[in-house]
Amino acid sequence: MSAPLYNRVALIGLGLIAGSIALAAKRRGLAQTVVGTARSAATRETAARIGLVDKVFETAAEAVADADLVILCVPVGAMASVAEDIAPHLKSGAVLSDVGSVKAAVIEAVAPHLPDNVVFIPAHPLAGTEHSGPEAGFATLYENRYCLLTPPEDTDAEDLSRYIAFWQGMGAKVETMDAEHHDRVLAVTSHVPHIIAYTMVGVADDLRRVTNSEVIKYSAAGFRDFTRIAASDPTMWRDVFLNNETATLEILGRFTEELFALQRAIRKGDGDHLHDYFTRTRAIRRGILDAGQDTDAPDFGRIKPE
Amino acid sequence: MSAPLYNRVALIGLGLIAGSIALAAKRRGLAQTVVGTARSAATRETAARIGLVDKVFETAAEAVADADLVILCVPVGAMASVAEDIAPHLKSGAVLSDVGSVKAAVIEAVAPHLPDNVVFIPAHPLAGTEHSGPEAGFATLYENRYCLLTPPEDTDAEDLSRYIAFWQGMGAKVETMDAEHHDRVLAVTSHVPHIIAYTMVGVADDLRRVTNSEVIKYSAAGFRDFTRIAASDPTMWRDVFLNNETATLEILGRFTEELFALQRAIRKGDGDHLHDYFTRTRAIRRGILDAGQDTDAPDFGRIKPE
Repeated sequence: MSAPLYNRVALIGLGLIAGSIALAAKRRGLAQTVVGTARSAATRETAARIGLVDKVFETAAEAVADADLVILCVPVGAMASVAEDIAPHLKSGAVLSDVGSVKAAVIEAVAPHLPDNVVFIPAHPLAGTEHSGPEAGFATLYENRYCLLTPPEDTDAEDLSRYIAFWQGMGAKVETMDAEHHDRVLAVTSHVPHIIAYTMVGVADDLRRVTNSEVIKYSAAGFRDFTRIAASDPTMWRDVFLNNETATLEILGRFTEELFALQRAIRKGDGDHLHDYFTRTRAIRRGILDAGQDTDAPDFGRIKPE
Repeated sequence: MSAPLYNRVALIGLGLIAGSIALAAKRRGLAQTVVGTARSAATRETAARIGLVDKVFETAAEAVADADLVILCVPVGAMASVAEDIAPHLKSGAVLSDVGSVKAAVIEAVAPHLPDNVVFIPAHPLAGTEHSGPEAGFATLYENRYCLLTPPEDTDAEDLSRYIAFWQGMGAKVETMDAEHHDRVLAVTSHVPHIIAYTMVGVADDLRRVTNSEVIKYSAAGFRDFTRIAASDPTMWRDVFLNNETATLEILGRFTEELFALQRAIRKGDGDHLHDYFTRTRAIRRGILDAGQDTDAPDFGRIKPE
């Protein structure tokens, strides 16, 4: 194993994402020491009990002291106050990053607090599950998953390549892009799918004529895939929508327009329109499978044909 | 193994659903002989080559001759013409069933063609995958899945219990309900989720600013779950929407109403509304897991935490 990329890594927040970074970084020898903190005492206690990091600190200010790499793993809405808290305690030359699902708003929230001698490289690993908390993390979460970086144009090349190597070391495929582009792409691939899934599950919950028990019993027909997405962390997702408002609303507008067109086709009995549309969408699935971004096992492998 | 429930079962259509019935019925000894036919010569040839059924016939009329149980496994839009074709050839006392995803429209399409000495018991197994065709079938598809029957009120009790035993023999949990209720429940648990998934995938395909390649690469963030649903058979789904128009449009109306409310909350920055909504939907997921209708493995078990 080669020398660690960082001597000391500090994780602020100790949920699924941070926990998985801690486990992967230690296993792959990417950091000499990984420390962390969380706002909730219960989370800190759990993390300490299961040995998620080498040391759990009470405060973010203590946790970042002497760290070469600090990663903010808190909901997007908490980034500004955490950045303000830790800014005076960051080591000169340290790299600061985050894992927020939106990037332009995080940069706006964090950058103003940072001293000049700290390098800010925003990141967004496209990985996660519907589970949350320190016990949900696992070392292989980032394997074969993308991690998108949105570094400022003047980022030092060596700082950047070292941080890229850190994510690659955890198995991720790293790409860089500008923050605004990131937010538009993610509105399509993640944010709008989530708000739609939340909505559909909410509608099902509201219907009294179709009882909850029936909705749950007969969910295998499609609905249960929505419930998995709609089981994601509420605080994280509230913050995503509040902080990627423009792109989310734009894509939602497109979605509604298309939905109304299909709705009209159903009302008018225009089977050709429906069939053409459904044939086109099938091709995208093929692209995702060819790109290795999902399994071709039927029902994601939930059922096992022999 | 006890005596077969039916001497001869005929399957009209030889895709995923019929193929799985054939394999399950033979393995569990539920039928002495399983025969079938399909409109497409290529499908008939594939089914014969892989030995999906005991005998493949050229026409539906030949296939149903002497069958004690005939199951229509064709798209909903084809039910009427198939029923008309086979009606003169059905054995007296035979049970006729189907596996269509909508029930009121199928009953309306099929029942008028049937002679009085044939027993019609409509069925809808809530099982399937995004794959289709004769090679997609497998014997365990129906295990632990619901099969909903919508028998007419005057159905003979013995005929009904035998047919229930047939599905239970393949591992399914059988429930009966009236056809209109079925169509409303399925609009929520299946039909509207599908039209929404198709729409979202179509929107992504349309966007030129967010290239297809990016949408595919970064699909793991939520979008890929929609693409699996939107990869389902286009003909089957066209027919579902054309034949469950009323319930689909009603639930779509509810969906749009809720979506607009969440959209307004995003625009107004109403974080409490979003957080409350997302917390409520999480509980439904828990209900589905408790009911044994999905796996709690993160990401449906696509990733394997150690």
